[in-house]
Amino acid sequence: MAAGDRDAGLTGRITLLTDFGTADGYVAAMRGVIAARAPACIVEDASHDIPPGDVHAGIHALGAYWLRYPPGTVHVVVVDPGVGTARRALIVVADGRIGVGPDNGVLSPMLARAVSVHEIRDPGLIIQPTSNTFHGRDIFAPAAAFMAAGGWVEHAGPRVDDAVVIEPPEARVMADGVEGEVVHVDRFGTLVTNVAAAQIPDGAHVFVRDVAVGPVLRTFGDVDSGHPVALIGSNGHLEIAVRNGSAAHQLGAHRAHPVKVTPT
Amino acid sequence: MAAGDRDAGLTGRITLLTDFGTADGYVAAMRGVIAARAPACIVEDASHDIPPGDVHAGIHALGAYWLRYPPGTVHVVVVDPGVGTARRALIVVADGRIGVGPDNGVLSPMLARAVSVHEIRDPGLIIQPTSNTFHGRDIFAPAAAFMAAGGWVEHAGPRVDDAVVIEPPEARVMADGVEGEVVHVDRFGTLVTNVAAAQIPDGAHVFVRDVAVGPVLRTFGDVDSGHPVALIGSNGHLEIAVRNGSAAHQLGAHRAHPVKVTPT
Amino acid sequence: MAAGDRDAGLTGRITLLTDFGTADGYVAAMRGVIAARAPACIVEDASHDIPPGDVHAGIHALGAYWLRYPPGTVHVVVVDPGVGTARRALIVVADGRIGVGPDNGVLSPMLARAVSVHEIRDPGLIIQPTSNTFHGRDIFAPAAAFMAAGGWVEHAGPRVDDAVVIEPPEARVMADGVEGEVVHVDRFGTLVTNVAAAQIPDGAHVFVRDVAVGPVLRTFGDVDSGHPVALIGSNGHLEIAVRNGSAAHQLGAHRAHPVKVTPT
Repeated sequence: MAAGDRDAGLTGRITLLTDFGTADGYVAAMRGVIAARAPACIVEDASHDIPPGDVHAGIHALGAYWLRYPPGTVHVVVVDPGVGTARRALIVVADGRIGVGPDNGVLSPMLARAVSVHEIRDPGLIIQPTSNTFHGRDIFAPAAAFMAAGGWVEHAGPRVDDAVVIEPPEARVMADGVEGEVVHVDRFGTLVTNVAAAQIPDGAHVFVRDVAVGPVLRTFGDVDSGHPVALIGSNGHLEIAVRNGSAAHQLGAHRAHPVKVTPT
Repeated sequence: MAAGDRDAGLTGRITLLTDFGTADGYVAAMRGVIAARAPACIVEDASHDIPPGDVHAGIHALGAYWLRYPPGTVHVVVVDPGVGTARRALIVVADGRIGVGPDNGVLSPMLARAVSVHEIRDPGLIIQPTSNTFHGRDIFAPAAAFMAAGGWVEHAGPRVDDAVVIEPPEARVMADGVEGEVVHVDRFGTLVTNVAAAQIPDGAHVFVRDVAVGPVLRTFGDVDSGHPVALIGSNGHLEIAVRNGSAAHQLGAHRAHPVKVTPT
Repeated sequence: MAAGDRDAGLTGRITLLTDFGTADGYVAAMRGVIAARAPACIVEDASHDIPPGDVHAGIHALGAYWLRYPPGTVHVVVVDPGVGTARRALIVVADGRIGVGPDNGVLSPMLARAVSVHEIRDPGLIIQPTSNTFHGRDIFAPAAAFMAAGGWVEHAGPRVDDAVVIEPPEARVMADGVEGEVVHVDRFGTLVTNVAAAQIPDGAHVFVRDVAVGPVLRTFGDVDSGHPVALIGSNGHLEIAVRNGSAAHQLGAHRAHPVKVTPT
């Protein structure tokens, strides 16, 4: 990414995604660091309710929003169970947005489209002395402020060519249908799967853990209250929901449970 | 509302109230859409912790804050169990503020004082293709960005004269006192009722589910720790609290439980 | 603090820390009051998830962030079980930042370094009529807006010389080691103690409730998953964590439980 591109798209906007909760003041400490270093920057909370250490949940959340923001936005993601170990701290440039976070795969949605990846190493960019347990405050927040204020990613540290990427499991198209799995359970208990709309045969029927859900319908309202429904969710993939209820609870389903889609 | 009024009061401020939680990235997706379409707009989280599908809780929360914000503020409310069905998407103009949300009653506090109500129908205003399950991102967020940036509500779609309004239950003044009910239980376990301060006779005694609470006092500190107290809450209505405790827990009380206020 | 100092550092930034949760609309009501009175001000959520009435948790959170923000920032803290009683409402000026909250000790981290403390008494500063149960909206929010907009603290009310300060318990250095205690348990179940890094003897071993944790290591990654580890936390004090787990759960430890550090 050339500096000119950077300036053109610069919005001075940072989003924060963590597993910190807010009650301990950790997120506010990150916000304070940013406020001190990039006072004109808009800082938005994506979420701080990622389950502790759940990198997969962080990936799923980031995937839902990072491209909705305009170019120039800096997305900070701190789900970082390996903080203080040798795992690297990264800045990722992808589609004009900037990702900042640990090299543990949590930035995968951006890495999949990355133009460049750099390690954060410049000591002048980092709070000194640096704690071993709170890189959100000491490394990622100041790096985000630096980038949001128009800093050059090349100044942060060396180029990285082997960042950790966590590939989502792929649904398999078989002779007798599509075999996928639950990749996320959302707050409503809806099961998000890895079966793309385009993979679904006409007149398909959906099974979760071998329990029949039924055909693929349009929306929750197409079934009665309390009944399960298969539909294409807002990210273009198959979902299983229960109208005014929880599919996860009703079907006893969790992440990684099998989902099958068969022609009638 | 004339365009001139709109411009005069315009703050470019949007508030968000949903039942989405934050962990799935849905709220951040809405924020991203707004950031892309109205980058100079201030976006504030009212809450994302409304219990899933609880329209009444959404109404209560909205009622607590919508008029506290200055004219020109756009209040987005997405508690929308009927998403994807034929229920309409609305823009409400009331007291110089703008409400955006589904036509299921959740905007009732604003509808009660509305100058105009329009349906959101203009395809150019809406993200295409539009999902059937996430109108917060595809319809309400872009409509809010449009209004916050000074758009004319008439451009959004046709006028609506029959929006769904959910009336709060009214307390009845009887010969032997006032009969009301619990309309909300807050985070502290305090019971908010529909009995207005002006309806309460001098020297009144308060009963919840036929259990005597006592006279109406001034504040929590007027009773000992762990004791219940009746008082006039911050919205001008009778509340029953327990000092340093939960009235809901101690009295086993929920929304819709009866409250009685009798002269001594 | 002279007015000149104030203007120099003014950022028009307010942070909010409460025990309100967000679902009742109370926080949004405070935000609305601020938006109406100081529309250009940036308002940031520190947290609204402090356990109800837990002044100690409020102190701990505030301590984590207040000095990270730049001078001129107004930190509002409303953990206020005595709302409506005779307890005073305060504005604290410390290190160029401004604290606003009840006189119950919750502002202690700022009071320990205060240049001046004033009571909020000017009726023109306060919303009239003032509720007895929601000073966050009626007193603290407008006072914060006043200060963020460059108001003089002397206008708020009389000087206070006897604000309530809650001192953190001090660890005692004994002949056979250091005796401290758990002062906070964070979201990850990590036990934060009052033993400062400088108090820890070389080759020290750590005990929580007489259970041996081991030597002081550098970070979580220095032990295997599921094992406890003692380390210096991000606030410069001893912490006991469990890698990918909860030390509070595994050790059955809570706030005020004893911690001992002994030379080998």
